[in-house]
Amino acid sequence: MTDQHEHIAKLVEPITNDVLSGAAELALQAISIFQTLLSEEKSPNIEDLRSALVVASKALVEAQPAMAPLFHLSNQILYAARQPGTDRQVRKNCQEALDRFEKFLCDSVSKIADQAFDLIPPGELVFAYSFSSTVVSCLLNARARGRYFRVACSESRPSLEGRKLATHLANGGIEVIFTFDSAMGLVLPNCSVAFMGCDCIGIPGLVNKVGSLLLALACRDMGIPLYALCGTEKFVTDDRLFEFENHERPGSEVWEEPPKGVKVLNKQFELIPLKYLSGVVTEQGIVTEQNLAKYLSNLPVHEALKVAPV
Amino acid sequence: MTDQHEHIAKLVEPITNDVLSGAAELALQAISIFQTLLSEEKSPNIEDLRSALVVASKALVEAQPAMAPLFHLSNQILYAARQPGTDRQVRKNCQEALDRFEKFLCDSVSKIADQAFDLIPPGELVFAYSFSSTVVSCLLNARARGRYFRVACSESRPSLEGRKLATHLANGGIEVIFTFDSAMGLVLPNCSVAFMGCDCIGIPGLVNKVGSLLLALACRDMGIPLYALCGTEKFVTDDRLFEFENHERPGSEVWEEPPKGVKVLNKQFELIPLKYLSGVVTEQGIVTEQNLAKYLSNLPVHEALKVAPV
Repeated sequence: MTDQHEHIAKLVEPITNDVLSGAAELALQAISIFQTLLSEEKSPNIEDLRSALVVASKALVEAQPAMAPLFHLSNQILYAARQPGTDRQVRKNCQEALDRFEKFLCDSVSKIADQAFDLIPPGELVFAYSFSSTVVSCLLNARARGRYFRVACSESRPSLEGRKLATHLANGGIEVIFTFDSAMGLVLPNCSVAFMGCDCIGIPGLVNKVGSLLLALACRDMGIPLYALCGTEKFVTDDRLFEFENHERPGSEVWEEPPKGVKVLNKQFELIPLKYLSGVVTEQGIVTEQNLAKYLSNLPVHEALKVAPV
Repeated sequence: MTDQHEHIAKLVEPITNDVLSGAAELALQAISIFQTLLSEEKSPNIEDLRSALVVASKALVEAQPAMAPLFHLSNQILYAARQPGTDRQVRKNCQEALDRFEKFLCDSVSKIADQAFDLIPPGELVFAYSFSSTVVSCLLNARARGRYFRVACSESRPSLEGRKLATHLANGGIEVIFTFDSAMGLVLPNCSVAFMGCDCIGIPGLVNKVGSLLLALACRDMGIPLYALCGTEKFVTDDRLFEFENHERPGSEVWEEPPKGVKVLNKQFELIPLKYLSGVVTEQGIVTEQNLAKYLSNLPVHEALKVAPV
């Protein structure tokens, strides 16, 4: 491993090991990593910088293959870096790409929150699953706008990011009812609507934290509308959608010392067919299974980030 | 509290606090408690003994209101104790009632195991939920009879009795795939059949560890047959069926120190409508929703154990 590779691996490591953050949060962390590479002295000439950005982009996408915003951010920065120009111009182009992406994420959340507000019935109990900064922002925004409601949520084993969700909401003045994941079936009958975030979405479904499928099945059975809240930076074509299947965490996070003969499975993500969702709330409006295809852009993909054919 | 009440409360306490054992195991523990009362010198005359048995029966049924065998065992011992006779005869009648109940449980499991054998497809993956000594016996019996299969199971938060299940099965030579509860939706598509135990059953459903409903919904959606394995000592009339709703454990077992504004819910049991089950395998054959009513006996209930009208 070269010095540069080793340096980038160290920068990306916290993202690889992050089991508590949603996709949008990870994208903000990735912006900081790119900023570090742009500003530091390790890439004295432009070719070194371009090569560092390619290495970092690939490392980020591999670190969390389910997290679509890491792919879109990396893709945009690689296209910005490839433009001809002086060292200073290229760095400026890259910085602008980062700023655009960050601004897009912020504007996006605020547009999604506006629409989610209308989906939260006053005085009711709302279910939220796992941790998504978009879901947290939407719920806190509605509370700040004077809507009163309570939220039910669950642990999200094994990382317990559900506790992070509960803490953020309670700190924002929302009353929270918290239970373990398998008790979803007990609290959902009292809920009027359910929300979840999303790590990436395409045809035929949405990828999110494991447990989302059981939530979706229960919502369907109980007649509870279930919405995913996410910007179009989560949209991917189907060659990339199944990359999440390559992601498995150590079994010891679930059971430290299982007896002989017990194999511990610790997958983090699963696919939820679009037909189980009442809608996907994006900054461009509510997308349903019927009209998703038109949102899946024919995005040019930098050759460093193309998915290798099976 | 009298000396006798205090003594009985101490004997029953381990059953109250037991979050790892299934209903049949708890019944065996309750048999030991009754045996202690029958054999010891604290009840020198027959009226003292009868009164001790009433106090113990009520305490046992209250300790675990979802566990039907504790009710049936207590009911049978109270009827045995009420028969006229000398001190020695009454103690003998009671001991015989205990022996009959224990023998019934053992014979029952063996008859259920014979039927479950035919439901386990050779070479396939079988899902099992929570901990049930009946389910464990059936699976180990099938393995001992030379059937090869693997079992997938999950933690069963918050008490983690799924680890007990996995350990028993692995010790018996069955290969186990273990994951967290919300990952059921990920492993079930690879399973050919699912089994669960049962704490009590009546119309309109079966009461079992929380999480059973999500399992049932997923099995139905994925076309996987789901069987409950339990003897008719789990059958109760509907006035008793909903007693489980009175049972709630401390929230601190789920989250030790939640932040202000977060209420932790720790219910242990839930109702699974019979329509979600492919069948209930009892010592009398496979019972389905259509023919359950005829198994619900018009059992005489001792006045000490009658459910107070709402």
